[in-house]
Formats: sequence, structure tokens, C-alpha cells
Amino acid sequence: MPSNNRYDVTEWPAGNPAKDIGEVINSIIADIKARQGAADVDDGGKPGAVIYLPPGDYHLRTQVLIDISFLRIEGSGHGFTSSSIRFNVPEEEWPDLHELWPGGSRVIVDLPAGGAGDSAAGAAFLVAREGSPRISSVEFSNFCIDGLHFTADGSGRHPENTYANGKTGIHVASANDSFRVTDMGFVYLENALTIHKADALSIHHNFIAECGSCIELRGWGQASKITDNLVGAGPRGHSIYAENHGGLLVTANNVFPRGASSVHFKGVTRSSVTNNRLHAFYPGMVRLEENSSENLVATNHFLRDHEPWTPFFGVDNGLDDLTGLLSISGNNNSVIGNHFSEVVDANEIRPEGATPVIIRLTAGTGNFVSTNHVVAMDVDAASSDSCFEAQVDALLATEAADLAVTAVLVDPGSARNTILDSGSDTQVVADRAVNAIRATPTVGF
Amino acid sequence: MPSNNRYDVTEWPAGNPAKDIGEVINSIIADIKARQGAADVDDGGKPGAVIYLPPGDYHLRTQVLIDISFLRIEGSGHGFTSSSIRFNVPEEEWPDLHELWPGGSRVIVDLPAGGAGDSAAGAAFLVAREGSPRISSVEFSNFCIDGLHFTADGSGRHPENTYANGKTGIHVASANDSFRVTDMGFVYLENALTIHKADALSIHHNFIAECGSCIELRGWGQASKITDNLVGAGPRGHSIYAENHGGLLVTANNVFPRGASSVHFKGVTRSSVTNNRLHAFYPGMVRLEENSSENLVATNHFLRDHEPWTPFFGVDNGLDDLTGLLSISGNNNSVIGNHFSEVVDANEIRPEGATPVIIRLTAGTGNFVSTNHVVAMDVDAASSDSCFEAQVDALLATEAADLAVTAVLVDPGSARNTILDSGSDTQVVADRAVNAIRATPTVGF
Amino acid sequence: MPSNNRYDVTEWPAGNPAKDIGEVINSIIADIKARQGAADVDDGGKPGAVIYLPPGDYHLRTQVLIDISFLRIEGSGHGFTSSSIRFNVPEEEWPDLHELWPGGSRVIVDLPAGGAGDSAAGAAFLVAREGSPRISSVEFSNFCIDGLHFTADGSGRHPENTYANGKTGIHVASANDSFRVTDMGFVYLENALTIHKADALSIHHNFIAECGSCIELRGWGQASKITDNLVGAGPRGHSIYAENHGGLLVTANNVFPRGASSVHFKGVTRSSVTNNRLHAFYPGMVRLEENSSENLVATNHFLRDHEPWTPFFGVDNGLDDLTGLLSISGNNNSVIGNHFSEVVDANEIRPEGATPVIIRLTAGTGNFVSTNHVVAMDVDAASSDSCFEAQVDALLATEAADLAVTAVLVDPGSARNTILDSGSDTQVVADRAVNAIRATPTVGF
Repeated sequence: MPSNNRYDVTEWPAGNPAKDIGEVINSIIADIKARQGAADVDDGGKPGAVIYLPPGDYHLRTQVLIDISFLRIEGSGHGFTSSSIRFNVPEEEWPDLHELWPGGSRVIVDLPAGGAGDSAAGAAFLVAREGSPRISSVEFSNFCIDGLHFTADGSGRHPENTYANGKTGIHVASANDSFRVTDMGFVYLENALTIHKADALSIHHNFIAECGSCIELRGWGQASKITDNLVGAGPRGHSIYAENHGGLLVTANNVFPRGASSVHFKGVTRSSVTNNRLHAFYPGMVRLEENSSENLVATNHFLRDHEPWTPFFGVDNGLDDLTGLLSISGNNNSVIGNHFSEVVDANEIRPEGATPVIIRLTAGTGNFVSTNHVVAMDVDAASSDSCFEAQVDALLATEAADLAVTAVLVDPGSARNTILDSGSDTQVVADRAVNAIRATPTVGF
Repeated sequence: MPSNNRYDVTEWPAGNPAKDIGEVINSIIADIKARQGAADVDDGGKPGAVIYLPPGDYHLRTQVLIDISFLRIEGSGHGFTSSSIRFNVPEEEWPDLHELWPGGSRVIVDLPAGGAGDSAAGAAFLVAREGSPRISSVEFSNFCIDGLHFTADGSGRHPENTYANGKTGIHVASANDSFRVTDMGFVYLENALTIHKADALSIHHNFIAECGSCIELRGWGQASKITDNLVGAGPRGHSIYAENHGGLLVTANNVFPRGASSVHFKGVTRSSVTNNRLHAFYPGMVRLEENSSENLVATNHFLRDHEPWTPFFGVDNGLDDLTGLLSISGNNNSVIGNHFSEVVDANEIRPEGATPVIIRLTAGTGNFVSTNHVVAMDVDAASSDSCFEAQVDALLATEAADLAVTAVLVDPGSARNTILDSGSDTQVVADRAVNAIRATPTVGF
Repeated sequence: MPSNNRYDVTEWPAGNPAKDIGEVINSIIADIKARQGAADVDDGGKPGAVIYLPPGDYHLRTQVLIDISFLRIEGSGHGFTSSSIRFNVPEEEWPDLHELWPGGSRVIVDLPAGGAGDSAAGAAFLVAREGSPRISSVEFSNFCIDGLHFTADGSGRHPENTYANGKTGIHVASANDSFRVTDMGFVYLENALTIHKADALSIHHNFIAECGSCIELRGWGQASKITDNLVGAGPRGHSIYAENHGGLLVTANNVFPRGASSVHFKGVTRSSVTNNRLHAFYPGMVRLEENSSENLVATNHFLRDHEPWTPFFGVDNGLDDLTGLLSISGNNNSVIGNHFSEVVDANEIRPEGATPVIIRLTAGTGNFVSTNHVVAMDVDAASSDSCFEAQVDALLATEAADLAVTAVLVDPGSARNTILDSGSDTQVVADRAVNAIRATPTVGF
């Protein structure tokens, strides 16, 4: 037993961390509680502890329940490797592979799957504590949570390509303050990170990929940050999602495919989506819905192109090209200084023959859309058996024909918007009687 | 004694870190100096050391004096919890609380208070070394500095709500290079972090709240960064302050109330305030003063609304609504692509009946203000006994009447500015003979 | 030998880390391989390990070869101090200096120099593994790599001022995934960090200065991040360089002199350079070359002024003032919301009497340049023996005469560009028959 509130799971006498790290961590938490139970004298508090996971494989067969503040769980390696690529390598080639699995300080989630939509039941780490004060300053840092396998979902896709398995990495159920999730790796989980009722949360510098959904802020919350992460969800999930949050800052993230959305807000106000690099294979990349108002979407790079990898060829998120890469239902939002690249095969546009939409205002008033640059080109969609090289090839290819697009579409349900320098006169489709438009100047080219 | 320049305060033979961690750390520093005194042979240097604070409560009754380069002090938990909320819970409810104090690797500052304005005397950690070279690469990481209590200040507010106690977290007095303050927590200090004469400083990913002032860069300095922090000062203090700095980058911070200012520059040039989320309860959120010139203020989200929490109802920073949320005294600054939300009760505007100002240019020439979006609404101010829920409710509320504002006010003392697309013709108040104005287009709505 | 995959170089039985840490680390890697060779049973992988370098001086006389995934090498201190300043202090004053060398967890590169342009041969850390999968999740964190001395290069400058010594910090030769380089210090290396074929790389919060070149992404790659670094290369090298990358996010960096360029792209597409603070002593600060297309350059602060420090007075990168601070050869790029300060001595402009160029479009079509603010002034260039104070003085000085510049120059080789609000009518030099121009409004001042 440590004398100093630093625990190493490999040195703890109860349980076997290789076989069930959940049991070990719960036992450590019980010890922390017992030892600090008599505290709160002489201005002394309940300082929590740090639990260290050295690099290694740790099966988790018991859910960890965290109900104390100031607990830090840390490893020495985020351990991501692409399980998706590996599972799509023919099995006879597996013996030739250097390694088969993610690594680092790796928690292997071996829980029974939670019910559909119940990310708490299938969570490796569940944080829950009611009462006052809100649970504070729990920190997760620099280890890997690996869901190991996806499972058949009736789609007909290979089970390992479904992004479904009922497993969650971290689920925070209770109101919380000043949490940190940093430097982590998440892979092959249906839900990587689901946090309810967050205040002053920081999700920073994580690697969250090949998960059904990556980051979800649920319930409500305020004054939080999602910064500097590498993120990419599955075709039916969220890369970054928030609901009923105010003052959220989403910045400096590199969000890659294939999430159904890159950033998805419902009822989110006075928040920022700035300075991110966003890449998706489908429309509906950034969605501000359900009266999401007074938000700033600025200096992001949007790229929408086609899925290049054979195993996912033909998969989409069900949205057509009239959805917009950015769509807004809400009031008084600002959309400033973004770059949009729409690189698609004209033959693949849906509805067939439609003019794709880049920015769409569906409902609300008072939105300000200024100084956005839309680039659109028609390419031949092609798939490849190779993931990395195909993606890089597609990213670097810029030889293509121009493609006609609607840069900004304002629906009849939206009015009193201001649209400046975000498309030529013909590219902005809006009722000019109720919206102020200044088209980007042209010289007839 | 460690063989490898890694010290654990709980294992050090001299002193008792629980009773006076200051004495322990000073003793360790003396040991480091003694051991590396004979170095500098065979290209070998004075490599410094790391001092580790496991999670725990450590009273600090002796000021730590750091006068060696390459010292890293690190803990395992930033340990913030809201002392402000707790002290405003009725005392009879305290036994029902899960915990009473901040935690993590927690340094409890038990020094006698410094004199007014003398943040060095009351500093838990004082860094001071004259001569050459400048002291370099001192690092503070992932521990908590807790001032424990505020004290009566004559305002009549409850002593724990004054933000005053003469205590400082870290005070750097001497010219320094390549310092890092990362992942820290600061709470209930009159001055959290005061750094003089910084070169290439990084203040990154800290939690600095419920402190009188949070981050202050004093004297002069260059090429530093304040990035990705959660920050919120007291009503008479600075959240982020700098003087005579060049090339400072303030970005990706989430600055919440209730600082007298969010970002305050004096004589700062060629610096950036970009991409931050800023929220305040008073005017004067971002102030560029005393010939602050050639700075870039871009893609920030400004929200000014009312204090919703009863204990601070009626407190303000003394500035009226003509001050501007952003005010500039200086030349050739750029203000581009910001969103401003002014959400106030028209009955609370001061001077009574005034039209609130959003951006104000008070002195200087050549400023460029372009593509800013101002949203203003009139709400009923209301206070609540609940801090978190009231704040979230206020943040999410967007039903309100429009409020008339001056989007940009140019004083007679400022001229030759360019103001584009930042307000309608009537919202820009400036001498059009000496300033170039292009009003945001409207369609008569 | 550790039972838990955590190695401390000072506790390893083979070799002497003070004399040759390369031999020690290679021996540890051999042990890791041997121990995890029989893994891959029961979903167990090859989890790698962490190798810890406590603060101390470690000579490296054998190159480290990393060919396993999930290896983390970490120290406790980035250890930067300015060797450049020290070597330019008169030798008789050295005994008065507090310390002579960088520190922290300091690897001293004592390899024989690599051949010219061969950064692999002279690399302290070489990462190379062919076959599948790509090597993944190698992490370098919080230690110092010090090249110790520069060497004569025929320029006539003092050998310690050449930025040349054939030494490299980290060289990654093979395709790789999800690497991290964080919190490191690099000093006095000809090449600090050279990474080939990167996917989802994160270079975050490092201090890389006084190196010939700092960050170079070579070969090709995608979806990577260079964020929140302090960077400054030598006059013939790159601060940040990338070739054939897509989806690269370069943000929140503070790039100081004296690199030949601040950010240099060749054949880079759909990437972002946003929100950086960039400072250089020469033209050609940001260069998008060789069909670099669809990139976003937004809300950066550019400052170009003169070298103030005597030892480098008169040194430059060979480019003249017609080059532009930002130059673009490529299509459909976006340049939005940047601030440019050009602060030069009119007598030093080359070619003599020329009008300096700020943004230059040399080739390509469809670029969108909007809402950029150019400030230009004529100052007296002056040199000083003091580096820090001279730099700060220069940064803070804003009293100067106006200087005429070309804000945007479009070469005949570039057409169909849109240039809005980025210079007055006379400051934009372009063929208005083939480019759409809207000059920044003026009022005749």
C-alpha cells in the first residue's frame, strides 16, 4: 500500500490487473476512501489520489465506478493503432504483421455490451455521484481504452466494420466540475467519451478514432473546452456532439472521417467552433440545430470528399447534398472566414442532378455569414484497398473540373440574415427582400 | 536521497511536507545545488531536478525560493473545486457535503499575507535570480495552489467573497526564459500567477479560477504564449493581463467571469488575442491601453451578460456601458471576425438611458475593424442562489427583445481608422471625414 | 529489470547512461522485444513500454533505433537555455555565468556528424520499421536534445553561430501513425525533428529553438497537427516545413526568428495555417509553393522587422523585398483576416528603392484574399550586443514614419483571384481584367 496516495495497479495486492483491472481499480478506490475518511481536519481535505497504469494489457471485466473527486488515472501511452485497417487485412496475412492490437497502457473492455443507447451500462469507467458538491477534478490521462471488436449489426457489413458493440470508454453521469480528459487514446468503442452536465471541462489532446461516437456532451453544461484533439467517428455517430451547452470552445481539433457529423450542436448557445480542420465523406459536417444561437463558426477548414476505401464504399450518413456542409437552425450566429472545399463526383450527387449546398440556413433570424470561401470541383470517385495511401492521394489531388454549387441557401424559414462575400450573386440563393446580401465580386470569369 | 535527480517530497528526510512543504522544497533545492555544484565538466551542466508532490494536503508555511534553472515541480492533480460555492452554502449544510476543500496535489498557502500590491511577499513560490544567464526552463505542472480563505476588505461582502488575502501562488521576479506553467490549478489566491520579464514563456492548460487576479505578465517581455487555459478572476482583478509585451499569443482560452477584465493590455504590441471564448459580467472585457499597437484581436467570442448569483449581485468593476466591451487606445490594431453578444437588462444600463458601446476606439490611428458581428438583447436581470444552474440557464436563454447599441464608437481622439462590415450605418458613430466606414448592409429590417 | 514495462535509464544494468544513453536505450528496447515476443495471445498485444530519463546529463554516442510501436520516451524537463547567447558572451565572462549548458533531462548528441542533407545518419533517435502495420504511437515527451556545438561552415561566422553540425534530434524514416512529440526541448541541432510519411501526428507544446531547421514533415502525409509550439530556426532553415501533406493543421504556434521561413509548404493541400504568431527578420515568411492548393491562411499575426543582434547583423535568407511576407503558388487558397506588420529601414530594402510586397500570388488561380490588414513603417535599423533587451525594444517600438508597400501583388502567372479589403486601390497591384478586386475603402488620408 502506498504511503503517498500514488497507486500502481501492478503493485496492488488485491486482484490481478491483467485479468480484471476494473476489480483492481475499484479496490484501490475503496482504499482511498477508507484512508481519507477521517480527513477534513486542520483545513485538510480529501485529496484523492493517482492510479498509475504502466504500459501493458489490462482486461477490464468489472466496471470501474468513480465517486470521489480529485482522482487521476494515468498511463504512459495512448496506444492507438488502427484496428480498422488490421481487421480488413486478409487473415492469412496476420502472421506477417508486426503487431495485431493497440498498445500502450491499454485497458481492454471485456464487459457485456450495454443496451442500445445506454452508454452507461457498457462503460469501462462510470463516474457517478449525486449530492453536493458536484464531483470535481477527476483526470484521465495518457492511457488507451480499447473495445477490441465490433459486432454484427444487421447492415451486412463485416462485423468489425459496424462501429457497434455496446461498449463505452468513459461515461460521466453526474454533474461535474473541472474534469480533464487529456492525452488519451480510444479505439473500437461504440461510444468513446460521454459526459453529462459538465462545467469547465477540458477535453484536450486526445486521440479518439475508430469509435462509433467520439465526444458527446449531454444533458447541459457550460464553459468547457474541446481542444487539440484528433477525432474521427463512425458513419452513424458523432465526432463532436454537444447539447444545451453555453460557452463551449471547440478549437484546434483535426476531425477526420467518417463521422455522420464533424461537429453537431443541439440547443447550444454562445459557443465557438473556430480554427478546426474538418474532413468528412458526407454532407452535414457541422450542424447547429434546435435553436443553437449566437455561436461563432470561424476560420475552420471544411473538406468534404468521397470515401476512398473499399470496405466502406457506398456507406453514407443518409443526408443528401442539399443538406449543406454547414447547416444552421438558430438565431444570431456568426459564420466568418471559413474555407470550404467540396470535392465530389457530380454523378454521385443526391438528389440526382441537384446543385450541392455548402452553407444552409434552415430556420432562425439574424445570422451573419461573411467572408467565406467556397471551392468546388467535380472528380471521379474511386475506391482503393489501401486506406492510408488512398486517403493521401485523394487529399493531394487537385486536378478537376469546376462544380456548380449553392454557396449559401437561405430557406424561407430563416430571415433577416446578413450574407457578405460568401458567394457570387448566383451562388447565394435567398429572398433578397428579407435578407441582406452582398455577393462576392467577380470579373465575369 | 535520490540517485537520479527525482525527489519525492514525501520521501525527503528533512522537514514534514504535510506541515511545511516550503521548508522541504527549500531543503531539496539546497541539496540539488550542493550535488550539481561541481558540474560543468565534460560538457556536463547543471541539469536541475524534478520535485514530485503526490496527491495530498501540504501546508506551506515557508516561502519557496527558486534560484536554479531546470527545476520542475510536478504533482498528480490540479485539484480545483469551487471554494466560492462551498463558502456560500449555509454552514449547517457543510456536514452533508462530500468534501469541503480543493484536493489533488494541494499546496495550502499558510504564509502571512503580503502587503497590498506586493505579490512577491505573499507568494508560495518565489522565483528570483539576478545575473546571467536569465533563469531558464523552470516548470510547474499539475498541482494545486490553494489560498484557503479570503479575508474582509471593508466592502461589506462576506470575507470569503472578497477575493483578497494577500496571497500569491507563483511570483517570478527576475528576467526568465522558456518557463512553463502547465496543467496547474489555482484557487482562492489574491494573485495566482505573476511573472515579470518573460521570454518565450508558456502558460498552457491551467485551471485558474476564484482568484483575485489570475495571469499577470509584468515589467516587459516577448514571444510568450497564454493558451488553452480556463480562467476567471475576481471583480477587481485581471483574468489575463500583460504590460510592455511584444509577440504575445493569447489563444484558445475560455475566460469566464467575474474578472474586471478578460484580457487587459498596457503598452503591448504586435501581439494576438485570437480565438478565445470570453465571458464577463461587466463592460471593459478586452482593453488595449497605453499605446497598445499593431495587435490582432480576431475570431473571439465575447459575451457580456449579468451576474446571476445572489452573493455577487450588485457587484461590478465600476465601468459604465459606454466603455465598450472592447476598447482600444493605440495604433494600427486589427479587430477582425469577432462575435459580440451583449445580453443586458435595459434598466441596468449606466449611465441611465445610454446606448451601450461594443467596440470603442478612444485614441490612436490606423486601426482596422472589420467583419465583426454584434448581437444585443434586452433581458430581465435576475439573481439566483444557485451558481451553476443559474449560469447555465442564463447562457442558454436567448428569448429577448432587441437592444439598440453602438457597435463601433470612434472618439475624437482617434482617427484614420477603417471600419468595415461591423455595424449598420446608425450603429457606427465616428467622424466620417477622418475615418473610412463601410456599414454592414441592411434591407431595412 | 522492471516488472511493469516502465524503465528508468539510471537503473538499467547494461551500459552507463551518463556516458552513452544510446547504448542503454537500445539495450532496453531489445529487452522489451524479448519480453513481449510471445504475446498476442488472449487478445493481448505488444504493449510497448515507457523509458524514463530523470533530469541529468546523458551523452549519446550510439544512435537509438526505434522499431517497435507504443514506445514512450519521457523525461522531466525540456531544459532549454540559450546556447546562442552564451556562446556570444565573451569567454572570460563564462565563470560568472550561473550555468553554461541546457539542462533538464538532457540528451547530449555526441554522434559523428551525418553527411550534408542526411538527417538520418546524424540522428540521436532514428525511427524506422518497414512492413505492416505502420509503426504507431511512439511518443517523445518532456526531455531535451542538445547538439552542444555548431561548427564552421565557411560563412566566416563564428562556428557556434552557423546552425550547422550535421546532428538531428529525431528522424522518423518510415510511414507512421498516431505519433506524439510533446513538451520536448531541442537546441543546437542542425535538424531538430524530421518526420517522413506521417498520419495523424501531433507535434504539440514543444520548445524548438536555435536549431538549423526545427520541424520538417517530409515525403507525404495527412491529418496531422503542429500546435502550440515555440519555434525558431536558423537563417537557412525551416521553422515549420511540410511537403505533400493534406489536412495539416498548423495553429497556435509562436514562431520567432530567425528561420529562412516561418511556415513553408510544398505541394500541401487542404491544410490550415491559422492563428499563429509569426515573426521573422526576412521576407518569405509563409510560402505556399508547388501547387499548394485549397489551404486556409487565417488570423495569423505576421511581423517582419530587422535583426537587432550584432552577431547576426547582415545575415539574411537571400530573398528580396519583392518576395512577399506571404507568397502563394497554387490554386483556391484562402487568405483571411491576417495582420501584417512590416517594420523595416527603407534604406535596407532590396532591390534598392523597391516597394516591398506583403502578399504575393505568383501562380495559380482562384485564390481568395480578404480582410487582411497591412501596417508598414520605416524605422532605423540598429544592432545591439544584447539579444533579449534589443528584441523587446524593437518589438515595442512603434514610433516611425509610414512606409509605402504593395499590399497584394498578383503576378501575370496568377489569375481569377478575388482580393477584398486587403489594401487600398494603389496598394493592390493586379490585372483587374482577370482578378476581382475590391480595395479597402479610404477617406483620402
